[in-house]
Amino acid sequence: MAVYTDVDDEALAAFLTEYGLGEVLSFKGIVEGVENSNYLLETSRGRYILTLFEKRVAEADLPFFVGLLDHLALNGLSCPTPIHGRDGRALRRLAGRPAIVVSFLTGVSPRRPDVRQCASLGRVLAALHEAGRGFAMPRANALSLDGWRRLAAQTRAGADTVRAGLAQAIDDELAALGRLWPGDLPQGIIHGDLFPDNVFFVGGDVSGVIDFYFACNDALAYDLAVCLNAWCFEPDGAFNATKARALARAYDAARPLAPAERRALPVLCRGAALRFLLTRLYDWVNQVPGAMVRPKDPLEYLIKLRFHQGATGAGTYGLD
Amino acid sequence: MAVYTDVDDEALAAFLTEYGLGEVLSFKGIVEGVENSNYLLETSRGRYILTLFEKRVAEADLPFFVGLLDHLALNGLSCPTPIHGRDGRALRRLAGRPAIVVSFLTGVSPRRPDVRQCASLGRVLAALHEAGRGFAMPRANALSLDGWRRLAAQTRAGADTVRAGLAQAIDDELAALGRLWPGDLPQGIIHGDLFPDNVFFVGGDVSGVIDFYFACNDALAYDLAVCLNAWCFEPDGAFNATKARALARAYDAARPLAPAERRALPVLCRGAALRFLLTRLYDWVNQVPGAMVRPKDPLEYLIKLRFHQGATGAGTYGLD
Repeated sequence: MAVYTDVDDEALAAFLTEYGLGEVLSFKGIVEGVENSNYLLETSRGRYILTLFEKRVAEADLPFFVGLLDHLALNGLSCPTPIHGRDGRALRRLAGRPAIVVSFLTGVSPRRPDVRQCASLGRVLAALHEAGRGFAMPRANALSLDGWRRLAAQTRAGADTVRAGLAQAIDDELAALGRLWPGDLPQGIIHGDLFPDNVFFVGGDVSGVIDFYFACNDALAYDLAVCLNAWCFEPDGAFNATKARALARAYDAARPLAPAERRALPVLCRGAALRFLLTRLYDWVNQVPGAMVRPKDPLEYLIKLRFHQGATGAGTYGLD
Repeated sequence: MAVYTDVDDEALAAFLTEYGLGEVLSFKGIVEGVENSNYLLETSRGRYILTLFEKRVAEADLPFFVGLLDHLALNGLSCPTPIHGRDGRALRRLAGRPAIVVSFLTGVSPRRPDVRQCASLGRVLAALHEAGRGFAMPRANALSLDGWRRLAAQTRAGADTVRAGLAQAIDDELAALGRLWPGDLPQGIIHGDLFPDNVFFVGGDVSGVIDFYFACNDALAYDLAVCLNAWCFEPDGAFNATKARALARAYDAARPLAPAERRALPVLCRGAALRFLLTRLYDWVNQVPGAMVRPKDPLEYLIKLRFHQGATGAGTYGLD
């Protein structure tokens, strides 16, 4: 939500000599992406985003992220496309940080996506999963069962200060998911964090997907479960079954879900809800006074978790 | 240096129904302007900046600022041009704040302007003063002698915690300027805050001037004195006479300075240095712990003030 590392016109000009992008016409820090510093760069050749990776993104993971964006763009997904320098490299350093230049994407993130936008998202999520096929670099999901157990341990002392009984509720859910979590679903590249602020629209249609810094290999249907959590609840906590149906059916029409994926959907949705409950809880109990980023309410995801615990099957999400 | 007021896609769409700007293609908060929230807006008609005025800009002054931008743009200055709605109004409200849409300006602010850029600035400063002629709305300079006296009183208790003897140095300079300050110089619209971050360049030439929220009626040559302070000192405190000569001579060639203006230049430069010393000192001694904006060092302007106190005349600034 800010620019953490300052880049001046001279440092920019020196950096850009590695590229063939022409004269700089505009350069502005933008408020996009919680994790990194982002600048909108316009040159005589076009518009780009310059990203400086701040310390929250592990430097060892950057070749995976850059390679993935290359692969997804090559396979037709509208995502930031890394610009390679004259030496062929896309990833280099600027102002002491790892940095990349990527293509600019048109579109606006919706605050409250409508049904048509949910359907468009479903199609694009399936396209993302299809475009990810054949990408050879592996990256484990650090925020699956083991990661949740670690976060639960790290937040246990503070959980009940947020809501009495929260620590026990988390432990119970972790125990249940340990028994129920499916290990045999179709795997592939997932986005892992496909919230509305990571999707651009022009009108009702997705124009681009950004922020792949939680992307990893995992069950493809888990990505759909993340989206059902992030896109299909109203601000008052109500589950919007019309949006869920539009999202899930559009996904299923483009990439038909296997019977095991359909059966697992309620459990996957529970896991996705627990994942965001835990990461938000971690940020909440570790707030820095005066920090620039206000943490999000973890209890929003307790409400969502409770809903999924009561789901009867894929039908809850609009799939027959 | 941030976006203080959040505007979502729905609020934006409702706001833009008052304009004829077409479909929204992109909308990003940008890190530009310390005082306000700014968004870069792209529509099917073009690119614009949406500004929401935060509380540091007095709402009663907004018609002056908007009218001035209209007037300057009409008279050929490359500055943000207010976009008027279907009802003819440029100033309206959004998210509880006064808001305007203005034209987008190409260019990049230089961290360390070079000699050619200083010359271009001199020409554009003269053009700004010329374009301001005939603008009928008055606005007094709240940061001239009386304002400095008020700031000196408000910072007196804290001044010596920044540097021993600073309070006395300020009082001495205020007393001297009270005797020396010229009252009869050519008046007009001044920008009042024409620092490098308020000027865009493409290559060596000014492409636009922004941030007119200190604009007012005052001695035109005082604006030149502000620029000599802001553009012609190196980071180590040294006065760069080559840059000053380029700036002052380019200004003088476009708008010849009267003999009284030349004579007054050292005193005007002292006043400008004291003005930024005092406002920076005020921000320094009134820091809010954890605030998002880091205050600038006031003592940079004590060094500049000392230089101007030793000036022998307009020749110090490159004018014969």
